[in-house]
Amino acid sequence: MFAPVYLDHNATTPLDSSVREAMLPWFGDRFGNASSRHEYGRAARKAVDEARAQVAAAVNAHPTEVIFTGGGSEANNLFIKGAAALMKPGLVAVSAIEHPCVREPARQLIRSGWRCLEIAVDGGGRIDLAAFDRVLAEKPRLVSIMQANNETGVIQDVAALAKTVKTAGGWMHCDAVQALGKIEVDFRALGVHGLTLSAHKIRGPVGVGALIVDKRIELAPLVAGGGQERNLRSGTENVMAIVGFGAACELIVSYREARSRQIAALQAVLEAGLVGLGACIFSAGAPRLANTSFFAIPGVDGETLVGRLDRAGFAVASGSACSSAHPEPSHTLLAMGVDAALARAAVRVSLGAGSTRQDVDGFLTALGENLASLRTMTAVAV
Amino acid sequence: MFAPVYLDHNATTPLDSSVREAMLPWFGDRFGNASSRHEYGRAARKAVDEARAQVAAAVNAHPTEVIFTGGGSEANNLFIKGAAALMKPGLVAVSAIEHPCVREPARQLIRSGWRCLEIAVDGGGRIDLAAFDRVLAEKPRLVSIMQANNETGVIQDVAALAKTVKTAGGWMHCDAVQALGKIEVDFRALGVHGLTLSAHKIRGPVGVGALIVDKRIELAPLVAGGGQERNLRSGTENVMAIVGFGAACELIVSYREARSRQIAALQAVLEAGLVGLGACIFSAGAPRLANTSFFAIPGVDGETLVGRLDRAGFAVASGSACSSAHPEPSHTLLAMGVDAALARAAVRVSLGAGSTRQDVDGFLTALGENLASLRTMTAVAV
Repeated sequence: MFAPVYLDHNATTPLDSSVREAMLPWFGDRFGNASSRHEYGRAARKAVDEARAQVAAAVNAHPTEVIFTGGGSEANNLFIKGAAALMKPGLVAVSAIEHPCVREPARQLIRSGWRCLEIAVDGGGRIDLAAFDRVLAEKPRLVSIMQANNETGVIQDVAALAKTVKTAGGWMHCDAVQALGKIEVDFRALGVHGLTLSAHKIRGPVGVGALIVDKRIELAPLVAGGGQERNLRSGTENVMAIVGFGAACELIVSYREARSRQIAALQAVLEAGLVGLGACIFSAGAPRLANTSFFAIPGVDGETLVGRLDRAGFAVASGSACSSAHPEPSHTLLAMGVDAALARAAVRVSLGAGSTRQDVDGFLTALGENLASLRTMTAVAV
Repeated sequence: MFAPVYLDHNATTPLDSSVREAMLPWFGDRFGNASSRHEYGRAARKAVDEARAQVAAAVNAHPTEVIFTGGGSEANNLFIKGAAALMKPGLVAVSAIEHPCVREPARQLIRSGWRCLEIAVDGGGRIDLAAFDRVLAEKPRLVSIMQANNETGVIQDVAALAKTVKTAGGWMHCDAVQALGKIEVDFRALGVHGLTLSAHKIRGPVGVGALIVDKRIELAPLVAGGGQERNLRSGTENVMAIVGFGAACELIVSYREARSRQIAALQAVLEAGLVGLGACIFSAGAPRLANTSFFAIPGVDGETLVGRLDRAGFAVASGSACSSAHPEPSHTLLAMGVDAALARAAVRVSLGAGSTRQDVDGFLTALGENLASLRTMTAVAV
């Protein structure tokens, strides 16, 4: 198989070899339903429990606070719908730049009599504190604000926001899917009621995530049934994936800081090159993840550029991966006040643990060549 | 690892080697988010599409009718809650022997103003047709009846029941998780609006299932977000698991009938032996799956027996795997009118593709020895 240079780690990441190693027995002869009361079942239960401890340790939570789900989207839906189901209808507020798997469940609550507000962000993509205070004055029952944005990489001060939400009597949820493995994610320090994690963004397997839940709150399950995961997520435990998630969390504990420094050095080279090619980098002045560079070359369509870079052997994104099927410009950029034309030019490069200086240099060369060729075409067309 | 004889295939099954083979590339160097618009994304999309066609072919459905989920429990919850969310509250009716992941979501609807009824079964575990007609007279909006029971293996005439439900104006759902791979599961012939499947019961991976949905009906998503799976199940597609599910469905198409004949022959030997040891076999006279034998030795506690058989090297179940953590007797047996004392004696043997005559003979010998030893202990205790 032809293997293009992969620069789309915010969409998904390849399995780390240590994760694969940990999963391997469960891909081979080992199997078993963790609820079964025999040797196979006990071995499965033990593996799940070990992984639960690994995930908890990576985010400074207690293992009993970890609810395994089928992924980050499910965990976000579980918190928002699961909390709302046991409350009287009220106000749910989410930031205007949340991933669709937070915005959509919040909007679905409208059907059950809830009001749904979006909290504005400033031009750099950070929560607008005046807008936040206005929303807080309306006493939201539920608030959800992500720790780091999937498109711009912008980091929010979730701990401070959570404190205010709790003082106002609301429940605070945080989607930390993109933050995990890139910056510190500390459940206690963030002080949130619910925290969403996903394995496949941190070199773990697809198909597993977790909701870390403060045990003092009660949620209704999204998937009800056999009563697994403290009755919050029924269904036979996906042992192989859960074991992989645990192993991926071990990696974070071992290597996150060193990797982040390496990646930050690459980002500096990348962004200097991008600016040299005429790019404007979104949220350049805001606190951002070291791996994420969201930029636009004014006048050059983002989709077109992504297609050309793909043919040149570089895999990058034009918007959030999940909504790439839709041609609308990024809702994150629109919320930041970026005009639609520039938003349509957006391209996202997200580096990962395996990214090298060679990848970045090659990407910049390919980008430069394609821009030159697009300009020639435009010149000819005119 | 010590490998006991596995006779608990209704709880979960080992991966088939052909399934593992199909999944292997995605456990190796291949990865990608199927929503991404580059080489990695397109390869992932293609793999998902191929698996979708394989799953559809196994149950005589159209690929566009297949909605991949994180498992059977989620698919059952998706149909029941997803249908109810877009309806005016009314009556939901499920059989009294449904798996908890059907009964519980139906009961959760009570919170939203629904009435929930359970449809009685007869002493053999088949739907009581008089009870069914009484429920139908109350015009249920939603009805769910499983094709084959996970504990007794009893098969329902879902096609006939679905016809009546549709005539009465209701939507009919069928949980075919235990039927798939063991008897014919034909979406068109069953004539249901929704059909639930799971991969790990058919030698596929854990963590993936499907809801087959009649495209003329509309459901609300349980997991809302990026809009994957026709907007009915958001979240990054679990490509490796989906590919494995497709491969497992291929197996059904190739081998189901031949394997069922082999397993039926083993069941005859097993059940003759059980009766010889004084067992009563539940639902003995009803149409049943060839792999499932649910029995009791009067006066011998099922949990105790399962524990002793486990130590003797045979993995069997005392009740439905998912609820094995709870000590209540099987709700299926209680619904059949079995008294609680006999229900507590219940043990389930479920054969699989790898089961042999040697396994069955060894199991019967171990059972006989343990019964003799338990009787001696009882005699001594008296």
